[in-house]
Amino acid sequence: MNIGIDMMGGDFAPAEAVTGIQQYLERTGLAHLFLIGDEMQIAPLLPQSLFSSVTIVHAPLVYSGLQPLAKRFKKGLQPSISVGFKLLASGTINAFISAGDTGAILVSALTNLTPFERVLRPAIATIIPKENGTRGLLLDVGLNADCKPEYLNQFAVLGSAYAKTMLNIKAPRVALLNIGEEEGKGNRLTQAAYRLLQQNEKINFVGNIEGRDVFSCKADVLVCDGFTGNIVLKLSESLFNIAVQKGIKNPYFDLFDFQGHGGVPVLGLSKPVIIGHGISKRDAFLNMILLAEKMIEKDIVHKLSAELQN
Amino acid sequence: MNIGIDMMGGDFAPAEAVTGIQQYLERTGLAHLFLIGDEMQIAPLLPQSLFSSVTIVHAPLVYSGLQPLAKRFKKGLQPSISVGFKLLASGTINAFISAGDTGAILVSALTNLTPFERVLRPAIATIIPKENGTRGLLLDVGLNADCKPEYLNQFAVLGSAYAKTMLNIKAPRVALLNIGEEEGKGNRLTQAAYRLLQQNEKINFVGNIEGRDVFSCKADVLVCDGFTGNIVLKLSESLFNIAVQKGIKNPYFDLFDFQGHGGVPVLGLSKPVIIGHGISKRDAFLNMILLAEKMIEKDIVHKLSAELQN
Repeated sequence: MNIGIDMMGGDFAPAEAVTGIQQYLERTGLAHLFLIGDEMQIAPLLPQSLFSSVTIVHAPLVYSGLQPLAKRFKKGLQPSISVGFKLLASGTINAFISAGDTGAILVSALTNLTPFERVLRPAIATIIPKENGTRGLLLDVGLNADCKPEYLNQFAVLGSAYAKTMLNIKAPRVALLNIGEEEGKGNRLTQAAYRLLQQNEKINFVGNIEGRDVFSCKADVLVCDGFTGNIVLKLSESLFNIAVQKGIKNPYFDLFDFQGHGGVPVLGLSKPVIIGHGISKRDAFLNMILLAEKMIEKDIVHKLSAELQN
Repeated sequence: MNIGIDMMGGDFAPAEAVTGIQQYLERTGLAHLFLIGDEMQIAPLLPQSLFSSVTIVHAPLVYSGLQPLAKRFKKGLQPSISVGFKLLASGTINAFISAGDTGAILVSALTNLTPFERVLRPAIATIIPKENGTRGLLLDVGLNADCKPEYLNQFAVLGSAYAKTMLNIKAPRVALLNIGEEEGKGNRLTQAAYRLLQQNEKINFVGNIEGRDVFSCKADVLVCDGFTGNIVLKLSESLFNIAVQKGIKNPYFDLFDFQGHGGVPVLGLSKPVIIGHGISKRDAFLNMILLAEKMIEKDIVHKLSAELQN
């Protein structure tokens, strides 16, 4: 399998990406890696012994976050992100990882890839560390700031299939993140989504859960709009830093360190795509490559797609 | 001053309320307390020595959460919450505290009190413990699940005035809770609210802040819709329980114990109203009475109202 990595994305690119790649190749190295970025910067950082395990694709242009969206992908310009998605679309690589600007990744993803049939909106999902040591899933955590009830209903199907395949959870309990546990509670979106989720035979819907139960064991898959999910995700990530700052050493709070799971998969696209944090370091890159490997091995895209076609 | 307490609201009523009241009277006892509830249950719990400091208002009916909203306040029925709001409206008491059902409190509040002039929507605000030991404010945390940009703009004014008066913060830095820090980020609501906040001369607007900065020191007052705020509030409260469960002893995590601040004030009503948790115990009741005392002393209602009239 071939995995492509955007070497220009993120605050510590390309040095931390290279170190993560090195760790991956020394550890398992199942995949051949395509390093997409400025060859002049990447090659000197890479040990000679690893040259045979990688292909450097020269794409020196970095997307600049200061450019307005419409001007981002002018003709002739080929930022590393665009090159990566073209390689993914053509089948040269089987998965693509970038810690670059999320907006740029999405524009490029939707330009080069198609969401698979019947997908209303792709979503990104994050792992939630549960109090009891198990893992749950939360989605959408940022792609869709404004959602329709139908989107949430589909996130439930995608998240449930992802949890089954990638987290080995049988019949994942799907809950709607809401204010109040009873049916009828919530804002207009969650009130309407509740009714759809309740009727959805593809999922094991267990009802509403409140903010206090995000980390509890009442559900495996939490569904919400991308605005709420992003607030919850980033607040959760800050808990790791707070614990460090307060001198609290506890393995549970270590689980909130995003470097441990690396990046978030985009669900609903026709190929595996992983979005990394802008502040991704070596461990994050290593873990994103391991996640990409697993997504390819498990054939997650077809499993998610099949769930929607049934 | 006279403070009214709903003795029938909450899971541990009236015993825990009585103990909280006893602690208050033994400690400061500035206010005369009106205990609104079932006299047959309250009187036997109350030490003889305190009878002179309280007035028991017999109102034995408890609102039941199982009744649908429309049936809640049938004619002739006088649940303790309704009696409390009537006493508040008539001026017999100067503030009212209830740990009863939030929906019932609000229906009764809006039936008996008027929001003060120019208030678009009352909101509830909670104290946020900051990493550096200071306190911030987050609103709305649940009254308005669906918001218009204008509401958020007004929450900013109310929250700012509350932070000045009650938390002694000069020129509170007001931020919009959002996904992404740059202007233009967010969902439709926050994109539109940003523009209003930016033009609002009554506040010290410092821009967007993300979920990761809820507990940071970048802002004093965080504004959001009641859905997002409620998720953040309840998730934050759960951190105290998680810390306890994980055996983490750290004074910072103790600050997430809601019993420490007791209840949340409703901003925008013509009288001070405090809503308590359903699981309020003695400390929560004590702290709610102390908060009510301070709200009366500081004349918070008129200060908030004045901010909107200018």
